[in-house]
Amino acid sequence: MIKEAIYHRPKNNFAYAYDADTLHIVLQTKKGDMQDVQLIYGDPYDWKDEKWQTETDSMTCSGSTDLYDYWFIAVKPTFRRMRYGFYCSDGKEECYVAEDGIFSTLPTEISHFFCFPYLNKADVFQAPNWVKDTVWYQIFPERFANGDASINPEGALPWGSEDPTPSNYFGGDFQGVINNLDYLEKLGINGIYFTPIFKAYSNHKYDTIDYMEIDPQFGDKETFRTLIKECHKRGIRVMLDAVFNHSGYYFPPFQDVLENQENSQYKEWFHLWDYPVVTDPAPNYDTFAFVSSMPKLNTENKEVRDYLLEVARYWVEEFDIDGWRLDVANEVDHAFWRDFRRVVKEVKPEAYILGEIWHDSMPWLQGDQFDAVMNYPFTNGAITFFAENNMQPTAFSNSLNRVMHMYPQNINEAAFNLLDSHDTPRILSLAKESAARVKLLYLFQLTFTGTPCIYYGDEIGMSGGQDPGCRACMEWDSSRQDQELFQFVQELIALRKQNALFGNKATFSFLHADDEKNVLVYEKRLGNQQLVVMLNNSESVSHVSKTIFGRELNNEISLPTQKIENQDSASEFEVPPLGWRIFEVKD
Amino acid sequence: MIKEAIYHRPKNNFAYAYDADTLHIVLQTKKGDMQDVQLIYGDPYDWKDEKWQTETDSMTCSGSTDLYDYWFIAVKPTFRRMRYGFYCSDGKEECYVAEDGIFSTLPTEISHFFCFPYLNKADVFQAPNWVKDTVWYQIFPERFANGDASINPEGALPWGSEDPTPSNYFGGDFQGVINNLDYLEKLGINGIYFTPIFKAYSNHKYDTIDYMEIDPQFGDKETFRTLIKECHKRGIRVMLDAVFNHSGYYFPPFQDVLENQENSQYKEWFHLWDYPVVTDPAPNYDTFAFVSSMPKLNTENKEVRDYLLEVARYWVEEFDIDGWRLDVANEVDHAFWRDFRRVVKEVKPEAYILGEIWHDSMPWLQGDQFDAVMNYPFTNGAITFFAENNMQPTAFSNSLNRVMHMYPQNINEAAFNLLDSHDTPRILSLAKESAARVKLLYLFQLTFTGTPCIYYGDEIGMSGGQDPGCRACMEWDSSRQDQELFQFVQELIALRKQNALFGNKATFSFLHADDEKNVLVYEKRLGNQQLVVMLNNSESVSHVSKTIFGRELNNEISLPTQKIENQDSASEFEVPPLGWRIFEVKD
Repeated sequence: MIKEAIYHRPKNNFAYAYDADTLHIVLQTKKGDMQDVQLIYGDPYDWKDEKWQTETDSMTCSGSTDLYDYWFIAVKPTFRRMRYGFYCSDGKEECYVAEDGIFSTLPTEISHFFCFPYLNKADVFQAPNWVKDTVWYQIFPERFANGDASINPEGALPWGSEDPTPSNYFGGDFQGVINNLDYLEKLGINGIYFTPIFKAYSNHKYDTIDYMEIDPQFGDKETFRTLIKECHKRGIRVMLDAVFNHSGYYFPPFQDVLENQENSQYKEWFHLWDYPVVTDPAPNYDTFAFVSSMPKLNTENKEVRDYLLEVARYWVEEFDIDGWRLDVANEVDHAFWRDFRRVVKEVKPEAYILGEIWHDSMPWLQGDQFDAVMNYPFTNGAITFFAENNMQPTAFSNSLNRVMHMYPQNINEAAFNLLDSHDTPRILSLAKESAARVKLLYLFQLTFTGTPCIYYGDEIGMSGGQDPGCRACMEWDSSRQDQELFQFVQELIALRKQNALFGNKATFSFLHADDEKNVLVYEKRLGNQQLVVMLNNSESVSHVSKTIFGRELNNEISLPTQKIENQDSASEFEVPPLGWRIFEVKD
Repeated sequence: MIKEAIYHRPKNNFAYAYDADTLHIVLQTKKGDMQDVQLIYGDPYDWKDEKWQTETDSMTCSGSTDLYDYWFIAVKPTFRRMRYGFYCSDGKEECYVAEDGIFSTLPTEISHFFCFPYLNKADVFQAPNWVKDTVWYQIFPERFANGDASINPEGALPWGSEDPTPSNYFGGDFQGVINNLDYLEKLGINGIYFTPIFKAYSNHKYDTIDYMEIDPQFGDKETFRTLIKECHKRGIRVMLDAVFNHSGYYFPPFQDVLENQENSQYKEWFHLWDYPVVTDPAPNYDTFAFVSSMPKLNTENKEVRDYLLEVARYWVEEFDIDGWRLDVANEVDHAFWRDFRRVVKEVKPEAYILGEIWHDSMPWLQGDQFDAVMNYPFTNGAITFFAENNMQPTAFSNSLNRVMHMYPQNINEAAFNLLDSHDTPRILSLAKESAARVKLLYLFQLTFTGTPCIYYGDEIGMSGGQDPGCRACMEWDSSRQDQELFQFVQELIALRKQNALFGNKATFSFLHADDEKNVLVYEKRLGNQQLVVMLNNSESVSHVSKTIFGRELNNEISLPTQKIENQDSASEFEVPPLGWRIFEVKD
């Protein structure tokens, strides 16, 4: 028994309130080390004859990584408070895990035990309910559709006439989006995430000039209002991009600093190191990365805070947007994000707050800041496994189990699961133009826990490399769209809406990972219903033994473009090259 | 090498901002496993020739527990942001520790690395500076001194004429405290923590009736104002006790509920389960523990929140108090405490917010809620080792190393280190009336990291068992006071004020723990200065080998009541039974 591998600490992914009555408790142990793990728990004040009253319940292994097993239990403490410890046995040795150490006998004093002092409803992490049923579609507005040539920026090129560069324009705008809402409705998505739309210098608009104005190349506030209304009419929510970490070079307060230097009334709006403030040869102020045209905003300054919070409030209150995606969210102070949440949720309690963080984000997901982060750890695993075929099924399931056990379940259910974005190459390019691999990616993404996002054009087979390659004009010529892929994604989205086993109500677990056959099997579970998915990540026919299911699988779900002509034997399912099998089962 | 024992997760005790420029990074490994641990780090955006630029620095073992070693390093990243990983070697095997796993070679992609995205000043945990130099004195106002017999509660008994019971009164009051401020000044303390003073039913006043009124048995607001002013004149800060988890039975809103039931305008102020609300045979509403006369307040209700926040503001703004100690702080929602901090710090940024939490409190010490918690994990170890002599030196140093590594260093520096309180037996009783053991406790407490607190009367050798025994009337008859103990504590406090090595600027580490001889040796370090303390926890003469210091120790510090007549040999220091040796050394 490796006692040193045992880890538990309350109030994060290891112990949290799942809802107003339920606590989830998780224990980490060395992989394969324990045969039996139990939770020993009781009310902190429940004493009888000077003895603390406890109960004991078995925990189940909810997943493993290459190093660890994770043991899980859900409990509903009568008085919403609990002290607890763990019993572990490897079959030969046993031990008791408490807050202050690991003991060979159960501690007698309650002070040794872990504590979840009170399940207060105000502290339950709760992303807006609608998010869990949302399929997002990310639009880079300059490149989705040009619906109003009269507002084309100077030098705009004919739609799709050239490859995208860091500085060219094609005149994508709001009217273009409005004109194509039928297309999005047909695809089935019900949320749009727009990269920045505010007045800015570049084509990507991440270098804001005026946070209170729409960039004129996209339209005016009236058109934007129409866009929101048309989206809402179709049940589509709208999320905007808030670039609050830094401003653009032409943001008037920064221009004022450059002009008036020490006398500028805005000198406290940035982190200036000394005077004169210069941009060349290197900026002498804090910037995003080392980009002198993106000066970091001093969100610790009250004026800056008030200004940005007013921006946050304005677009929600005046235009009824449904969410904010926060650019470079991890580099802005936590204190600001706490204020931000308060302001936004005051105006619209059901607004979604999504942080752009690429790494472990537990500190931002304590209920006081974000509802979710962009789940790049999910992305990294999925791309390496499915698109690049550069990881074995066991390593992939280990990697995803790590991601799933990094956060509480209610956080995972609202996670923003993207496959690519304006900041990465497109999935088709990552998959070396294999539409079959892209299908596996979508199948996995749309059956996984979280809220999936489709990057505009991926659904019709657009390819494109790292930025700016991934920012090409949307292909509207249907003869050049991959209709089969579109239909596949459309059907998956429909299934996710119709069949609860596809969505967030059902619990995801890996059942089987076969490195030799490059096959992965997982289930979604909801009460007595089970969805079994077998994925063949190899380019040859593979097989899955029927014994791993312990039951007959009969009710197969087929997807369009899929011919089910598999030659199953008595003992094995056949899974076609880069193919899948999906079964729905009832206990 | 036990890779599974390696643990690190940013933004808590493992990685945190120590000040506006400095990050502290800590890695946990299995005890004795690693010979070499290094930090590999770089700016997230610092690339040259497509290669991420990193530096490598050795980490040092800052302490061990029975299971783990903790490796520490302080770094000042140029641009206040950092990605990093660790190199570990046990002499035979080596590995690289990253956010998403443990690797045999250094990951090439930056996305694998841990991230401390930005050191924003607003997020640096910072307790008020004065706290780190404060020695607290806890007063239970009913029992400290009776200075105004005219406001004695009905049936008040002559001072100290009887043993304390849960319901008797002796008339302690503010005038009594004012009259004895000279005594406190002479002792040297510079902070008073008062258990509740607001209008309440019982002698302990934890069952509030009116949060906006002083209990008449203590005096009026004018006397309270005088008390505060007199304290401040002497450089003594004042902290009050806020009982916000629950009200008392006679709190008018609760009485209104009992009277008007479903029609009460206060029915949302509590967590009522059903109607009619009853207190017998068992309460049908949430309570503190199972005490029907202490109904839990619904701090999620806006009216309740506004009311309690107004209380929090009022006493700071109107009476200039310096801190709030928060009763049963762990059972109130985090959201409320975030509001509480905002309100209190707005009025007085230098106010101290201290939570009563007996267990691991990391979730409350993220900078957004409390400045400190009552450090009972410290208390438990110190009492078991020194007072009860029921733990070996190694186990004690393991236990204290665990406590010290549970939180960031800047949190430890503001921790409220108590030895006993109105909720525990007195230290002299715990030490079976051994004043020598009490001296060791004080010597340890007053040289340890944190802000020490003395429970009224302990310093003159009062004894008393579990509540109500520990709440006896202060002994003012000097012939019955242990003057030697008083003088000892007085001298220690003076040393802590005069000599920085005794206080929080110096870093505490254990040097040696000898279970056979029951001897413990530790140091405090500050630049090139060192304080060496040897404690003999046994009742016979003990010895400490001189070799462990690697230098001559000459400058011995003596304490009053101590006769330094030790027979040191060439190789060993002699430490008297239940005695100590203290040396101050310069490099």
